[in-house]
Amino acid sequence: MKVRDVAAALSAELVGNGDLEAVRLVHPSEAGAIGDLAVALSAEARGALSRSAAIAAVVAKPALDPADSMQAVIVVDNGRTAFAELTELFKRDPATTTGIHPSAILAGDADVAAGANVGPLTVVGARSSVGAGTTILSQVTIGADVAIGRDCLIYPGVRIADGVRIGDRVTIHNNASIGSDGFGFVPARLRDGSIGTGGLPKKIHSLGTVIIEDEVEIGAGTTIDRATFDATRIGRGVKIDNLVQIGHNVIIGEASIVCGMVGIAGSTRIGDRVLIGGGAGLADHLTVGNDAVIAAGAGVGSHVPGGTMVSGMPALKHERWVEFITFLGRHKALNAKIEKLQARLDALESNSKQSTGSGA
Amino acid sequence: MKVRDVAAALSAELVGNGDLEAVRLVHPSEAGAIGDLAVALSAEARGALSRSAAIAAVVAKPALDPADSMQAVIVVDNGRTAFAELTELFKRDPATTTGIHPSAILAGDADVAAGANVGPLTVVGARSSVGAGTTILSQVTIGADVAIGRDCLIYPGVRIADGVRIGDRVTIHNNASIGSDGFGFVPARLRDGSIGTGGLPKKIHSLGTVIIEDEVEIGAGTTIDRATFDATRIGRGVKIDNLVQIGHNVIIGEASIVCGMVGIAGSTRIGDRVLIGGGAGLADHLTVGNDAVIAAGAGVGSHVPGGTMVSGMPALKHERWVEFITFLGRHKALNAKIEKLQARLDALESNSKQSTGSGA
Amino acid sequence: MKVRDVAAALSAELVGNGDLEAVRLVHPSEAGAIGDLAVALSAEARGALSRSAAIAAVVAKPALDPADSMQAVIVVDNGRTAFAELTELFKRDPATTTGIHPSAILAGDADVAAGANVGPLTVVGARSSVGAGTTILSQVTIGADVAIGRDCLIYPGVRIADGVRIGDRVTIHNNASIGSDGFGFVPARLRDGSIGTGGLPKKIHSLGTVIIEDEVEIGAGTTIDRATFDATRIGRGVKIDNLVQIGHNVIIGEASIVCGMVGIAGSTRIGDRVLIGGGAGLADHLTVGNDAVIAAGAGVGSHVPGGTMVSGMPALKHERWVEFITFLGRHKALNAKIEKLQARLDALESNSKQSTGSGA
Repeated sequence: MKVRDVAAALSAELVGNGDLEAVRLVHPSEAGAIGDLAVALSAEARGALSRSAAIAAVVAKPALDPADSMQAVIVVDNGRTAFAELTELFKRDPATTTGIHPSAILAGDADVAAGANVGPLTVVGARSSVGAGTTILSQVTIGADVAIGRDCLIYPGVRIADGVRIGDRVTIHNNASIGSDGFGFVPARLRDGSIGTGGLPKKIHSLGTVIIEDEVEIGAGTTIDRATFDATRIGRGVKIDNLVQIGHNVIIGEASIVCGMVGIAGSTRIGDRVLIGGGAGLADHLTVGNDAVIAAGAGVGSHVPGGTMVSGMPALKHERWVEFITFLGRHKALNAKIEKLQARLDALESNSKQSTGSGA
Repeated sequence: MKVRDVAAALSAELVGNGDLEAVRLVHPSEAGAIGDLAVALSAEARGALSRSAAIAAVVAKPALDPADSMQAVIVVDNGRTAFAELTELFKRDPATTTGIHPSAILAGDADVAAGANVGPLTVVGARSSVGAGTTILSQVTIGADVAIGRDCLIYPGVRIADGVRIGDRVTIHNNASIGSDGFGFVPARLRDGSIGTGGLPKKIHSLGTVIIEDEVEIGAGTTIDRATFDATRIGRGVKIDNLVQIGHNVIIGEASIVCGMVGIAGSTRIGDRVLIGGGAGLADHLTVGNDAVIAAGAGVGSHVPGGTMVSGMPALKHERWVEFITFLGRHKALNAKIEKLQARLDALESNSKQSTGSGA
Repeated sequence: MKVRDVAAALSAELVGNGDLEAVRLVHPSEAGAIGDLAVALSAEARGALSRSAAIAAVVAKPALDPADSMQAVIVVDNGRTAFAELTELFKRDPATTTGIHPSAILAGDADVAAGANVGPLTVVGARSSVGAGTTILSQVTIGADVAIGRDCLIYPGVRIADGVRIGDRVTIHNNASIGSDGFGFVPARLRDGSIGTGGLPKKIHSLGTVIIEDEVEIGAGTTIDRATFDATRIGRGVKIDNLVQIGHNVIIGEASIVCGMVGIAGSTRIGDRVLIGGGAGLADHLTVGNDAVIAAGAGVGSHVPGGTMVSGMPALKHERWVEFITFLGRHKALNAKIEKLQARLDALESNSKQSTGSGA
């Protein structure tokens, strides 16, 4: 790809030689080979550019003053979106089978569209459908009565249980599990203290399903449970990282981002464009409003209003949690203040005794 | 299923037309289709019943006063257990192979009982046995010398390592791993500060196995490590959610419930009917007594006596942790109180100076 | 194995009958069968030895005074390393295929060395290589252009994505995922508050790979993401437990130990011989120095200097976090102290009024 074409694809300004070939994106410190295009859109990377062997670079405004050795500079308006666009220009799709691999096992009534790819040792169950342009890699399980839309990408080891519905342009990474049973049991120890249910927990079965809307991405090892009656629902454009657990009946609105190792317990509802930081946990039956932010590691036990940020354990309004930690950080000063009050009181009492008690 | 039969199965009172067909369980707000049986056993669902198009419903006592449109009402004594029983009546088993799928790979000396089902592309190792009534879905790995009991249900992608023993009526969900090595290493940096073991951590190998007793359920993606010498043991009726990590040598007593994303480190022993909330972590070599409750997100670093509840990070008796958070919540009031004491002292000292110091 | 040979392998002193056969390692409380060698290297196990039926035992110095029934005692210098060495003497490898199983699917140009084993239903992609002595168990996915070194052991269900490079003597446990996409998105809600990127998060694609160096061990269900440009790198001898999430661009130095359920966010760099306790979380773009210790459950949001220990949430220098918890533990005493100051002030003010205000 010519540097000129990269600039055009980004709607960016080009300074210098647009005929150079860009083969590979690199951090400025790694540049050197012919075809390396140094990406210097962060402050750190831009700083590294002066010590770089790069002959072509992408920078955000203000434009770089190109030294002699820098033969081409692409200058973008918005560094963050340009970064995403750049990676899209240079991405490579995973190696796949074309068509249906002979070792795949498809039910006789499975409906795999022409133009879909099904990899080795993948199983597609009865009455399931796979849309055109969708690629399913190797060793995937598609249960019975599953519907998968168009242009999806499903990586090895993914398990999609009976009846799950998946939209268009969905990506699901290695070993994710969609549609296992929800986790609901009546405990053996009942609320009145007696032991019931024959001494063992009694299962609440999951009769519902999971619906994954368009443009969703689901990380490796992530698990999404089916609903008790209706459907666990992952809204359009939601992005979920690795090893996330999403309980039965959960609903996530559009364009929300859920980082790695987050757990969302049953029946909790998340709004649109919510950001949930890594390792956060949400209790069951909560509501999180649109555009809320849940900090990494937060332990959320109560509703989160839209547009607010919570953090800490237990999760509180972010400013409140910061206050708590700041207060703890001043514990020595607090104790010193109290000691000083005591000393002053001692002195006053001693004075007071002298002035009133000399005759005792 | 007739509404009359549902009521009978629940040992519940029936008001109205028992001849209606119940096809599907729904939340009252979703009811509408012929055959929808509205389940209104929670306060929230009961509230929704008045705005529901349901013609048949299940409620807890006190009995609903059925409006004209409500043609049948089932009235149960105990809402929670009735809920579990209802879902059991309407559950559907996963679609499976009958018998042994021709693509399954069974060792010549594997002993799969008549009446067991083995799905496509599942591997069963040497000398392993599978009991009657057990269904193993597709792409499962059963190692060598594994014993699996009767009426188990093992979902796609489950890995059961050599020598593991599994009881009857056990359910294991997608991609769970039973019997990987425990995680024990002598660190390269020894306790005396020197670097030993050739500069790399030195592995403590796992010579033991895992025993899963009857009626256990294990969630998707959960991992249970084998013991160092003897057996990691999951007691009868224990229910484990998704993405839980259970270390080597751990023993869990009967009927305990372990929610999602819990980690239990090596050699910790959990009693009977213990409840462990989502995301909690337990250090190694601890003891948790019968009927203890560990709150979601708790970081448990010390023994937990039976019948007590712990929460927080570090986990403390629940009341103690609540005290801490309450105290933090009053930090402004505390500071104000100290400020006030200072002001009063200032005034007293000033008085005291005036009354004694006028001659200085 | 004769007890004499065990002692020799450990370079340990032998007291008693070296001709006894040692078949199995056991805890002293489990000993009884012929061939049981009781391992009593911890204080607890040593205490149990006096009530044990063992006739042979391994102990640390000081040497045990063998009772009549104890026919052989092996006395080691360093209990911890001896324990690891003992388990290595008695470990058994997993049952495997010899050579390439006929159901494995190898690309025509895959290069599997003579002396490597490839299990049933494993897929090896185009141009990938597997070194001599490496065993890949069943149902594994090796993508295209993957290089795997010598004497590795790869368990069922592991997914290794295109282009990943793995060194020698690496062990990867069930269902681990190496080389999925990193999790980077430009959120729909931009920093200026407007909604951009067409209303949906915009993906930053992962063009890089993962490099796993020699002697690394990776736990079941663990996920390691590929880098944006270059490589996520796991250094020589690093040991990673189950269900750990390692983000894109992360670099871990040599001989570090990462316990279960740890999450390390993108671009964080971990030094050599670092210990990370279970359930800890590390934010992105951090640096953790050599020989640092991160306590279990810590929520690390800032750099960790080499040789220090951090704990808590947010993670602080360990001593500082302990101070915080200790301070919280004294909240009643603190309040009592303030109450007492108030009472003393009340008394002084009352005195002061009496002595000055009688004429008012």
